[in-house]
Amino acid sequence: MKLAVDGMGGDNAPQAIVQGVLLALADFPNVEIQLYGDEQKMAPFIQQHERLQVIHCTEVVEAEDDPARAVRRKKDSSMTRMLEAVAEGRADACLSAGNTGALMAGGLFKVGRIDGVARPALATTLPTMNGDGFLMLDLGANAEAKPENLLQYAIMGDIYVKKVRAQQSPRIGLLNIGTEEKKGNDLTKSAYTLLNEANFNFEGNVEARELLNGVADVVVTDGFTGNMVLKSIEGTAGTIFKMLKDSFMSSTKSKLAAVLVKNDLKQLKDKMDYTEYGGAALFGLKSPVIKAHGSSNPKAIYSAIRQARIMVEHNVCETIAETIAQMPKTE
Amino acid sequence: MKLAVDGMGGDNAPQAIVQGVLLALADFPNVEIQLYGDEQKMAPFIQQHERLQVIHCTEVVEAEDDPARAVRRKKDSSMTRMLEAVAEGRADACLSAGNTGALMAGGLFKVGRIDGVARPALATTLPTMNGDGFLMLDLGANAEAKPENLLQYAIMGDIYVKKVRAQQSPRIGLLNIGTEEKKGNDLTKSAYTLLNEANFNFEGNVEARELLNGVADVVVTDGFTGNMVLKSIEGTAGTIFKMLKDSFMSSTKSKLAAVLVKNDLKQLKDKMDYTEYGGAALFGLKSPVIKAHGSSNPKAIYSAIRQARIMVEHNVCETIAETIAQMPKTE
Repeated sequence: MKLAVDGMGGDNAPQAIVQGVLLALADFPNVEIQLYGDEQKMAPFIQQHERLQVIHCTEVVEAEDDPARAVRRKKDSSMTRMLEAVAEGRADACLSAGNTGALMAGGLFKVGRIDGVARPALATTLPTMNGDGFLMLDLGANAEAKPENLLQYAIMGDIYVKKVRAQQSPRIGLLNIGTEEKKGNDLTKSAYTLLNEANFNFEGNVEARELLNGVADVVVTDGFTGNMVLKSIEGTAGTIFKMLKDSFMSSTKSKLAAVLVKNDLKQLKDKMDYTEYGGAALFGLKSPVIKAHGSSNPKAIYSAIRQARIMVEHNVCETIAETIAQMPKTE
Repeated sequence: MKLAVDGMGGDNAPQAIVQGVLLALADFPNVEIQLYGDEQKMAPFIQQHERLQVIHCTEVVEAEDDPARAVRRKKDSSMTRMLEAVAEGRADACLSAGNTGALMAGGLFKVGRIDGVARPALATTLPTMNGDGFLMLDLGANAEAKPENLLQYAIMGDIYVKKVRAQQSPRIGLLNIGTEEKKGNDLTKSAYTLLNEANFNFEGNVEARELLNGVADVVVTDGFTGNMVLKSIEGTAGTIFKMLKDSFMSSTKSKLAAVLVKNDLKQLKDKMDYTEYGGAALFGLKSPVIKAHGSSNPKAIYSAIRQARIMVEHNVCETIAETIAQMPKTE
């Protein structure tokens, strides 16, 4: 299979991207990679590889570029050309650690929506205490959502978790401010009814407090709320780990303790590290478009490539298209 | 001043409530407390005090009671009678650690809204890394909100922080999924404009990820989002502390480390413990109605009483009423 990679996106580009690509090439013998970016800047990190093709691009979509216009205007950017490779069938999937908004807008514009999918959704796998993780969507592809959108998010999440994570009957949860059926705002109340009638394993409402305890395998919510919850989790974890670090550096006694539990704490931090599970995927597009975390290191890029590979191998997008095509039209 | 306290609400009632009340009576010589509850159940913990009046009630609003009906139906419950004491002017403020929904509904029904306040909001002070904390509202009094509601939340929060936390010009932030003015959903986009024109120190949008870093002194949001973010923060902190504990108990080496950093970790956990700052207050009612955390210990009840006392002393409700009365009517 052929994967297109944006070599210039993210805080650690191009080094981390190139190194992640090389790790993936070594591990996945059926993967060919097209690496888009500034040849000269990538050169110091590149190793010749028979399944690696470097395609020089003169432009880069920057973090501060306007998401809606970046891909259209920067025609020779690594992100645009990577998306075009997928759109034109020269690659089966693509991935970037760059500007999330630009990748979403560009994915929609270049790769295009699956027929019948009203709105694509950004999905990622978040960690749980038992290590299983859960898929959450939408994380912000659309700030507003209708109940029918949440139903489609659930269908796409169900397929993804069945195919990629090999779970037989994923538990689908609706993120809400209480577990009772009548709880929530107008959106969640209507969505509850729709999800409850659908043909998957709907577990009902789930609360934000319980997410990391693994109360569901797929959690659906509107993009505004999803983004809020994701960032709250990230922010809180980051703050606590920072305070913990300060705490361990505060005295000779605590420094000694830090040496004793260094490995345990590293393990704990790794457990909370959702880049382990791959990147965020834009669900509802015709081919997999993966967004790796902006601060991705080579291992995170490697994980995101592995994720793209599994999505292609298991025909996730094709299955979503077939499933949505069989649904009654709602809008 | 006279404070009415629900002796029967919360996981540790009546013991923790009675003990918290006694702590407060010892520290605050100007406070008289009316303690509502089952006399026989409270008796083992009660100490005679000249400023303590125990009022026997035969019923208790339970955690699983229907919030909308509990206070109306259980006419002789400790919560209902506590609210009536405030409504009838026999007490200046009240506090309960019981059923949040019932307290909100009962507060609205018995104590009543300030004229011109469209919707009351639930507010609490959350911890920040530097220890200052910030006030967030609405945390779930109303699942839906209009831009004008968020403006009133901001006005009430501004007054509270000025009066209770003695900050001259509190920084008001609008919780959003990005810091740029045009970010967010329809609600936050419209609210941004309103807040930006208002007569307080509006800092613009703030992101959930930055909350614990103290980016604002007052953070306003709709009750659905506020509840989600609060529970995400609580859930994440709880999960990490639990994992940390497991980690420290995993080997002899880590147990030794635990002994060395026990006090540091306790300090860190206390820093994240927002019961320290008092309870949640229902803003927009004619008198202070305080909701202490369901799992409140005596210290948390003490803090919540201190908070009620400061709100009464500084005329927070009166100031809100005067300020709202001077605003142009919007609905």
